[in-house]
Amino acid sequence: MASSAFNSDAPVLAPPTIQLERDRTRQNIPTKKQIVDPFRQGLITQGGVGYTQTVVIRSYEVGADKTATLESILNLLQETALNHVWMSGLLGDGFGATHGMVRNNLIWVVSRMQVQAESYPIWGEVVEIDTWVGASGKNGMRRDWLIRSHVTGHVFARATSTWVMMNKHTRHLSKIPEDVRAEISPWFIGNVAIKEDVPEKIIKLNDSAKYMNSNMKPNRSDLDMNHHVNNVKYVKWMLETIPEQFLEGHQLSSITLEYRRECSSSDIVQSLCEPDEDSVEKDGGINLLRGFNMATEICEGSGLLGSLDTWPLKYTHLLQIKGDNKSEEIVRGRTTWKKKLSILPFSTT
Amino acid sequence: MASSAFNSDAPVLAPPTIQLERDRTRQNIPTKKQIVDPFRQGLITQGGVGYTQTVVIRSYEVGADKTATLESILNLLQETALNHVWMSGLLGDGFGATHGMVRNNLIWVVSRMQVQAESYPIWGEVVEIDTWVGASGKNGMRRDWLIRSHVTGHVFARATSTWVMMNKHTRHLSKIPEDVRAEISPWFIGNVAIKEDVPEKIIKLNDSAKYMNSNMKPNRSDLDMNHHVNNVKYVKWMLETIPEQFLEGHQLSSITLEYRRECSSSDIVQSLCEPDEDSVEKDGGINLLRGFNMATEICEGSGLLGSLDTWPLKYTHLLQIKGDNKSEEIVRGRTTWKKKLSILPFSTT
Repeated sequence: MASSAFNSDAPVLAPPTIQLERDRTRQNIPTKKQIVDPFRQGLITQGGVGYTQTVVIRSYEVGADKTATLESILNLLQETALNHVWMSGLLGDGFGATHGMVRNNLIWVVSRMQVQAESYPIWGEVVEIDTWVGASGKNGMRRDWLIRSHVTGHVFARATSTWVMMNKHTRHLSKIPEDVRAEISPWFIGNVAIKEDVPEKIIKLNDSAKYMNSNMKPNRSDLDMNHHVNNVKYVKWMLETIPEQFLEGHQLSSITLEYRRECSSSDIVQSLCEPDEDSVEKDGGINLLRGFNMATEICEGSGLLGSLDTWPLKYTHLLQIKGDNKSEEIVRGRTTWKKKLSILPFSTT
Repeated sequence: MASSAFNSDAPVLAPPTIQLERDRTRQNIPTKKQIVDPFRQGLITQGGVGYTQTVVIRSYEVGADKTATLESILNLLQETALNHVWMSGLLGDGFGATHGMVRNNLIWVVSRMQVQAESYPIWGEVVEIDTWVGASGKNGMRRDWLIRSHVTGHVFARATSTWVMMNKHTRHLSKIPEDVRAEISPWFIGNVAIKEDVPEKIIKLNDSAKYMNSNMKPNRSDLDMNHHVNNVKYVKWMLETIPEQFLEGHQLSSITLEYRRECSSSDIVQSLCEPDEDSVEKDGGINLLRGFNMATEICEGSGLLGSLDTWPLKYTHLLQIKGDNKSEEIVRGRTTWKKKLSILPFSTT
């Protein structure tokens, strides 16, 4: 507290605790479990412990090919996870911390995240996002998601993540205290969205990686409510390191992220990327499905030339903070890709 | 069409028109006027011609201070405008073009946009966004918006925009054809969200501007469905040119944008910014309301030092494509700002 530094001419205003109460009123955070939230279009499901939210893919959540971007998908996963905690009546403050966690100065830290996308919803499509939690080892929590078509039930994407608790003052990882376990464990269920026998380990890249982007700095607008660089920004940095010509003609089919440390607004970040050279696509042919806008792309020398090449379909990634002597890992990643089956013949006006 | 270039080994697939129909089914675009859309939480209002949508501010739509970012606001304006056209039964294809516009090869082009924000909704807050259209001169359309608190009706922000039609092949502006006028004019009403007697003209900056960012390039992810650089990206480029220390302690209270030409993915953009030196804030005092996190910020030498300075509160902006001989204007802008009244005492973990 630096109250002595305050200018005594400054208007007298509500202290932070009152401000906090006022904001909680505006946010309308429930103190008891809710079953339905008509505004968020959310519903408690799976015998009272899961959460399902209906979402329409918005015009700005899709990319040039009119399908939801990975960034939008990741944002929606975060949003539904927080809304699940919101509905549970357990939301204390901040990013999904329960009342017990707030009492114990604990916050959630994500250690691993995996998304598998078979296909992506399009602009205007109605989807259902299911999310639920389970135990992960003795002191972790697993959170899973399914993104389904509202009409057909077709599963667009599956995701799973692992979380541990950290003391926000000491920054040390923490066991789950008994009062917190009592809050959250009734919500745990065993179903998994992605079946993995042995999670694939991601190797650490070094400076000999084939692709590298350096000197990346977070913008003010990349910081989330916790003043940390947003998870989605990490993924953007990773994917921007893959050559443009590849990205044009391919869609991400899976991504795994292993988090090592936080990145703050003053860090200078380097993104490394290495293709698996033995993962080159079998079909190097030209893709008919790109539709009749292809003519334009040929003229611009992008799409067609790109799709004539053959590309590896698996990539390893590393984001690190480049220090003078040593670098510090932020996150390791692994992506797999497939050819885009279609680019919509949407007027390029 | 470049069909002769297609590889005959490529799998035979649905031609673009069938693909388009399939997508329209997934999008479920109505062919008749709808009154209620339960998924988008939209409702036709104002005697059958306006549109109101209920929206909960999502966790990733807010910045570090927990209030909705200007980018999110602009995204929501676009979204509700398109949903209004969706509900009208007039949506043909693309970005809000009506059936008549599609027949006439016409697209909408925005010429001016103005947003006034008194305050910003916070994470989890339920807002209502009203939008409606009106005539603008003989061949233009005005679209207005109000963003209100669902609980109190308090107006957070007002916005207005002007649109004209362009032939997508010739790229020339067009009069409104009679069949298109017949479609859209029944939706016109006279109410205005922002009363302006004479719209302020924005002067053109030159290279002597105080702040300048050069060599800005759109990323693949900045392109919208029309393969153009998204409007929101323009605003980001403009605002990033204002010094960080100013942005930390101030919130945007109004922005006006005058669009001159489109920007494509290959353009290299320069952002110029000039403060009105006579618009320096009256109260240079330290802001008590920043709350008790201020101690940290003092240590980091950011917030406090920033708020001790006095800053101009009005800025003129220009985005241009820097050519060798001459530069081409993309958009002129004008922003006004006020001191942030509070930064929520949200745990910085």
